Amino acid sequence: MEFRIEKDTMGEVKVPVNAYYGAQTQRSIENFKIAQDINKMPKEIIKAFAYLKKAAAITNLEAGVLPKEKSDLIGQVCDEILEGKLDNEFPLVVWQTGSGTQSNMNVNEVVAYRAHVLHGGQLTDKDKFVHPNDDVNKSQSSNDTFPTAMHIAAYKMLQEVTIPGITKLRDTLAKKAAAFKHIVKIGRTHFMDATPLTLGQEISGYVAQLTHGLKAINNALPHLSELALGGTAVGTGINTPKGYSENVAKNIARLTGLPFVTAENKFEALAAHDAIVEAHGALKTVAVSLMKIANDIRMLSSGPRAGIGEIHIPDNEPGSSIMPGKVNPTQCEALTMIAAQVMGNDVAISIGGANGHFELNVFKPVMIFNFLHSARLIGDGCVSFNDKCAEGIEPIEANIQKHVQNSLMLVTALNTKIGYYKAAEIAQKAHKEGTTLKEMAVKLGYVTPAEFDEWVVPAHMVGEIK
Amino acid sequence: MEFRIEKDTMGEVKVPVNAYYGAQTQRSIENFKIAQDINKMPKEIIKAFAYLKKAAAITNLEAGVLPKEKSDLIGQVCDEILEGKLDNEFPLVVWQTGSGTQSNMNVNEVVAYRAHVLHGGQLTDKDKFVHPNDDVNKSQSSNDTFPTAMHIAAYKMLQEVTIPGITKLRDTLAKKAAAFKHIVKIGRTHFMDATPLTLGQEISGYVAQLTHGLKAINNALPHLSELALGGTAVGTGINTPKGYSENVAKNIARLTGLPFVTAENKFEALAAHDAIVEAHGALKTVAVSLMKIANDIRMLSSGPRAGIGEIHIPDNEPGSSIMPGKVNPTQCEALTMIAAQVMGNDVAISIGGANGHFELNVFKPVMIFNFLHSARLIGDGCVSFNDKCAEGIEPIEANIQKHVQNSLMLVTALNTKIGYYKAAEIAQKAHKEGTTLKEMAVKLGYVTPAEFDEWVVPAHMVGEIK
Amino acid sequence: MEFRIEKDTMGEVKVPVNAYYGAQTQRSIENFKIAQDINKMPKEIIKAFAYLKKAAAITNLEAGVLPKEKSDLIGQVCDEILEGKLDNEFPLVVWQTGSGTQSNMNVNEVVAYRAHVLHGGQLTDKDKFVHPNDDVNKSQSSNDTFPTAMHIAAYKMLQEVTIPGITKLRDTLAKKAAAFKHIVKIGRTHFMDATPLTLGQEISGYVAQLTHGLKAINNALPHLSELALGGTAVGTGINTPKGYSENVAKNIARLTGLPFVTAENKFEALAAHDAIVEAHGALKTVAVSLMKIANDIRMLSSGPRAGIGEIHIPDNEPGSSIMPGKVNPTQCEALTMIAAQVMGNDVAISIGGANGHFELNVFKPVMIFNFLHSARLIGDGCVSFNDKCAEGIEPIEANIQKHVQNSLMLVTALNTKIGYYKAAEIAQKAHKEGTTLKEMAVKLGYVTPAEFDEWVVPAHMVGEIK
Amino acid sequence: MEFRIEKDTMGEVKVPVNAYYGAQTQRSIENFKIAQDINKMPKEIIKAFAYLKKAAAITNLEAGVLPKEKSDLIGQVCDEILEGKLDNEFPLVVWQTGSGTQSNMNVNEVVAYRAHVLHGGQLTDKDKFVHPNDDVNKSQSSNDTFPTAMHIAAYKMLQEVTIPGITKLRDTLAKKAAAFKHIVKIGRTHFMDATPLTLGQEISGYVAQLTHGLKAINNALPHLSELALGGTAVGTGINTPKGYSENVAKNIARLTGLPFVTAENKFEALAAHDAIVEAHGALKTVAVSLMKIANDIRMLSSGPRAGIGEIHIPDNEPGSSIMPGKVNPTQCEALTMIAAQVMGNDVAISIGGANGHFELNVFKPVMIFNFLHSARLIGDGCVSFNDKCAEGIEPIEANIQKHVQNSLMLVTALNTKIGYYKAAEIAQKAHKEGTTLKEMAVKLGYVTPAEFDEWVVPAHMVGEIK
Repeated sequence: MEFRIEKDTMGEVKVPVNAYYGAQTQRSIENFKIAQDINKMPKEIIKAFAYLKKAAAITNLEAGVLPKEKSDLIGQVCDEILEGKLDNEFPLVVWQTGSGTQSNMNVNEVVAYRAHVLHGGQLTDKDKFVHPNDDVNKSQSSNDTFPTAMHIAAYKMLQEVTIPGITKLRDTLAKKAAAFKHIVKIGRTHFMDATPLTLGQEISGYVAQLTHGLKAINNALPHLSELALGGTAVGTGINTPKGYSENVAKNIARLTGLPFVTAENKFEALAAHDAIVEAHGALKTVAVSLMKIANDIRMLSSGPRAGIGEIHIPDNEPGSSIMPGKVNPTQCEALTMIAAQVMGNDVAISIGGANGHFELNVFKPVMIFNFLHSARLIGDGCVSFNDKCAEGIEPIEANIQKHVQNSLMLVTALNTKIGYYKAAEIAQKAHKEGTTLKEMAVKLGYVTPAEFDEWVVPAHMVGEIK
Repeated sequence: MEFRIEKDTMGEVKVPVNAYYGAQTQRSIENFKIAQDINKMPKEIIKAFAYLKKAAAITNLEAGVLPKEKSDLIGQVCDEILEGKLDNEFPLVVWQTGSGTQSNMNVNEVVAYRAHVLHGGQLTDKDKFVHPNDDVNKSQSSNDTFPTAMHIAAYKMLQEVTIPGITKLRDTLAKKAAAFKHIVKIGRTHFMDATPLTLGQEISGYVAQLTHGLKAINNALPHLSELALGGTAVGTGINTPKGYSENVAKNIARLTGLPFVTAENKFEALAAHDAIVEAHGALKTVAVSLMKIANDIRMLSSGPRAGIGEIHIPDNEPGSSIMPGKVNPTQCEALTMIAAQVMGNDVAISIGGANGHFELNVFKPVMIFNFLHSARLIGDGCVSFNDKCAEGIEPIEANIQKHVQNSLMLVTALNTKIGYYKAAEIAQKAHKEGTTLKEMAVKLGYVTPAEFDEWVVPAHMVGEIK
Repeated sequence: MEFRIEKDTMGEVKVPVNAYYGAQTQRSIENFKIAQDINKMPKEIIKAFAYLKKAAAITNLEAGVLPKEKSDLIGQVCDEILEGKLDNEFPLVVWQTGSGTQSNMNVNEVVAYRAHVLHGGQLTDKDKFVHPNDDVNKSQSSNDTFPTAMHIAAYKMLQEVTIPGITKLRDTLAKKAAAFKHIVKIGRTHFMDATPLTLGQEISGYVAQLTHGLKAINNALPHLSELALGGTAVGTGINTPKGYSENVAKNIARLTGLPFVTAENKFEALAAHDAIVEAHGALKTVAVSLMKIANDIRMLSSGPRAGIGEIHIPDNEPGSSIMPGKVNPTQCEALTMIAAQVMGNDVAISIGGANGHFELNVFKPVMIFNFLHSARLIGDGCVSFNDKCAEGIEPIEANIQKHVQNSLMLVTALNTKIGYYKAAEIAQKAHKEGTTLKEMAVKLGYVTPAEFDEWVVPAHMVGEIK
Repeated sequence: MEFRIEKDTMGEVKVPVNAYYGAQTQRSIENFKIAQDINKMPKEIIKAFAYLKKAAAITNLEAGVLPKEKSDLIGQVCDEILEGKLDNEFPLVVWQTGSGTQSNMNVNEVVAYRAHVLHGGQLTDKDKFVHPNDDVNKSQSSNDTFPTAMHIAAYKMLQEVTIPGITKLRDTLAKKAAAFKHIVKIGRTHFMDATPLTLGQEISGYVAQLTHGLKAINNALPHLSELALGGTAVGTGINTPKGYSENVAKNIARLTGLPFVTAENKFEALAAHDAIVEAHGALKTVAVSLMKIANDIRMLSSGPRAGIGEIHIPDNEPGSSIMPGKVNPTQCEALTMIAAQVMGNDVAISIGGANGHFELNVFKPVMIFNFLHSARLIGDGCVSFNDKCAEGIEPIEANIQKHVQNSLMLVTALNTKIGYYKAAEIAQKAHKEGTTLKEMAVKLGYVTPAEFDEWVVPAHMVGEIK
């Protein structure tokens, strides 16, 4: 490998001759040899940086503190980053300084040096036309850019992946709830037979869960829309021109098309990441919902012959390497594994959020790494579950009928006629003697056959169908 | 101990002769000998049941399915429960059936049997005037009453304990932020010296955290305001009169003075407790904030002679059994321990929430037990921290001054004058040679003494004070 | 309420006239009004203090630094504490100073003042014969006594409650595994029908889980057996006589009958509580096992008519307030709720353990509170589950037979005869057309009826029965 | 892209023409579009599969159920996988079926088809010389291979990365503890000044933590050494030759050089992964230790002028993009972020472990994904922290001296001379009036100057130095 020499305030460093990054990136590569093959700083953070560096350059130009030529060059490189042209220039990992300074400097270096090349210079030139700190990072600090990138990346991921994924699944389930709204089936409480409901009603509960989950995520967006940028080193905004915070937030909002605003309190925005903790709490709530839904669906579809077997889900792949013909609820399994992961990520995020000190939380990379992971998993997971499982849910009516008709809990309809205690006696004796409810009810003399047939009608026990 | 015989649908049971509870409560005592001395069902749940049983009796009366005399008697006993007169009648523990059926029946039995006594009967009468199932539990199931009690208890605790506690602390901190808004001090990032800010600004970050935390809790209230009551066994509302759900919610709202409404989807309300998961996510966010705040305050007050020592907090008690004269930040310790507990409770709640099956989540008791625990701890903890610590925070101006004036990071003010690299050189050499910044800046020839004095003024580096 | 005046180094305090505790306890009551009705310092910690105070008094006597009369009096009061005679004298809560100093002082005060009374004095005497700090706390600090009490209490609880509880359940399951070792049933993987095994084999997996869990707990005991006592304030052992650490550990071992030793490194023993974290990791592993086992048992016993219904568990109580005759797997529910709690407690403990600073971890009370809670819940929960559920497990052979005979996965036996692909074809077509395996196997011409009967025998598919 | 047609029991699938994998791998790619760019099945699992497939082929050969030519070919491909020659052939993600069947089939397909090519065939041949199910997977099921691969991968990672990393750091800290064993410094409890100890003693506590952590990991190894292989579909060992379990474990032990044995109970080994839960509990304990150690080191090195500043750690990189000359404890930050991640991963693993049903836990991929992540992070993180931070720790003796000499807690040495109360009075008044301890002690008349000098000697207060 060929090298060139780059310099930072600590001295000279050899960097790969064609790399756009410089000394500080290289130092980080060497200083943090931790899971370098698997834990790169998420690409969404790099892209968020591209938005904010461009917005900062524009704002600095507007404020008269950066010349147009430099501002334009910076914007141009940021566009290249957004287009994915410089993906290989961001080799750093999550496990670096907790402020994300090294990733900020990685971006500053790449933008400056690539700008220098676009401006006609060479990477090997000692002095570059655009300076990483004095130009690209102008009016900024890692301490306000990294949290800004966190919010941009998180908000975008929620809007582009997570919310659409959940919504897609919710809508499919709503269609299923409507389609099956008159299919009367046995209810189960405590995993035991209970009074009937319709399959549509059962699924409507899942729909309500996801609708509430979407509300919870949406409730968290305003806090996430607050940007730290303009706080610089410790929140005071040192070295920023007047009006900078508001203006740069506007420029980011314009570039991203998302409703970002400047954070009312920059000290909170640097020193704490409660917005991430709060929003991830909503993601975890959705994970909890998804675990419930996926569990129900795998249990309802269990069998084919020794399970519950009330619904059929698509056969997507051979399920076993040894048991021929086996098919398994694999989408449910992926989704419940995702739920477990998100619940774990929530703890990592909370611990990170709780352990900031003074003017700066230094668990930023681990927090956003876990956040983006969860947001992505839920979004992708819902789409996969939707496309390969939920859309194909169909009732197995024969089993449904058999279960509801055998049920001893239909006796509940008699409570208001003969009282809870006599009703219990009927159910208990029918269970013990293996008879039908009707046989026992009549045998005990509590109802006539005609009364039984009039009073105990599963379809009348499911309430109002909406 | 003397006993009387009570009966349920499974047969006869001996209960203490003077106990108002009956057979099912007694069975639960005997069947669940698990931490009986420390984990009683929270009293807030019992009181929530009193509200809902009274509301149900009224609603049943209005619907014409319960006679006035019984309705009134039920209401009267519920009032006694709310007044704390029957506290000893609720001996059951959290670790019982996951639907809370046994606590529902405990309440049903106590209300019925106490009503019978109020009506002139005796506990030893074989037949009671009011029946636990057919009267007290009329139009209800454990499956909708217990989640209703969960929401009532959770909402009330948030409104009466948690939110006022957080608000009190937030307001005190806001006063401190205002009082100290011009005290310029050193900033710290990465636990290392950074550019200055004011003590008021630093504390304003805590205020912003708690203000956001309160918003997060408030965002969760609407979901908590939805009541399951009217869903009965599986969400279909079997055995309820027409209009019951809406009417009983209105009666509960009236009795509690809180804005409860009937849940739009009763299947979700029984089968999942995402409202609890979601609201506890907000509590956990506040716990994360409190951990940060309390850590900062203990670190800022550390010393007295070998610590940071920039603030003084009240001396509340001797701190050591062996080190004479020692005083410790004990309120910070209680609050951070509470934060740890709430973060743990969050996991217990999430696991409970995720593991419901079909029509009923059966982790209800553990979920509400942890929720009420967290809500209480945060509320009480904030008040204690407020009264015994936050209100007494005072700056130690001598140390504050010394720290800010020695700081090498004041050099940041020179960035826009001489560039980041030369500024770095000044700071690095001053550090190495142990000089002041000014001495080194002048020695290196980058600024004149006059320029330094003009440009490097801590009070000018703290931005706009709001 | 009547008061007397007590004094500590900060001045005078009014305490209830008959309380044995003094000024510092009273200060803590007033300074920490946090969940005082529900979160008392666990009584096991108080009793552990009684052991260690007695052992310290004996060791101090042996070292010649405490007179016999005082040593004897201290021991006498400690015995009273162990007998439960002074239970009301320990009113402090978990949410106090993180070193537990106030509970140490509570014990010191009660021992000193009760000793004074036993010695013939009056509580209202200004000077007491035995001094809380100089006598009862001699050669000690809260910083080494509280962690010592943590280890004593934790170790005792594990030995007396947790391990016996798990062992009892494990042994019952082992008996069931033996009793059912020849009952061939369908296996289920992915909640779907799979090849057969015996009910005894299935249960033997639970036995193996608990046996491994017991090993994990036992592995953690040596670290827990290390006592901090003798480290005093920061681990250096200041103010202790020569040989004190070893001798006091021996005395504690003798008094408790448990194999305690002095910690090799006292700095670790004060500053970290990894022994608690580690041992609770083992408890959490057991909780994970119990969740699995209890889930299986509730699912296997589900029904009675629309579930899996392969085993019967005892009917302990009426299961529903609305559905007459319903019986539920309530012991499974209690146990899985316990598992959720323990998994939450684990996070609280880990956070507490991770956040110690310098010479002292100050999350001691929250750590031991959660530890003892988990250890107790697992112990009690296993006994309850054992007595009221596991012992009564019985197979429902009719259902077991039906399920195994219908199973399509018996086809696996043909893999080695006709290959996986043809076997799959048989199973898939039998499923689609609703035939038996044999019918389809013969119809497809892959085997003769005789071959099928010879090759596909469920009882031959369960391997060697141990 | 060009394709060829491959077939499985569900029909034909188009796969990339040059891919060694087949139909089932391709189905999984299409069915699980979940985070495909970031969450590949860990390469350690693929390599573990290579060991076990080779071992199975050898064992099948020895048992006479697989011809030598096929066995050899399988072994040859496994060697290629271990050499990394086929890395691109394993495109599947973690979020697939919870049994890992698809990754098992991915390996089966790649081994079979690559073997076919090595045998002279073409990928496009319809029939291959070696069959994925009937040959490569012979005597195996996903249900026993995947857990076997989990244990192999976990054990190897612990032995090769985690344990060496922790040991390296522990040994460096032990050297520092020895080097600094006579440097007397102030102790800090509750973040407040306490009695002195030596810097070596302080660091010895970290050494003891890591030594105990290593013990905890080692305690977990025996359970991890148990292999599921031989249990096949549900633990009964269907379709395995006699003696297979023991023999294949021996072959795996031989190939890996690690002490693997066959699991005593295969039902547990498939249905639960408590060994993973248990071992990760040990990793989490180490994470808790590392958080404590890294926090201490960053706090001790804080400053340079307004912090504690008692140790110096290496200056590795410029610390700020805005504050010139700033250096930060970045290795501490990476390590504490890792600790947060591991604590989160622990929850994901526990939830996965708790939610297995019947004969198979189907959270296998998420469990091992998190386990390997943690094991890797701790190993790499310890080495990075060691090389770039711990090795460079040096005392800053001037600050250390100043802190210890100013300390009021030296008064503790007077307890045994004048009693706790008088000692407290000295410290309190010295604090209030800003005097030295000696001045106040003499002024109050409790000691003479000579007594003070004799009794209060920091170096005599640190106990025995080992």
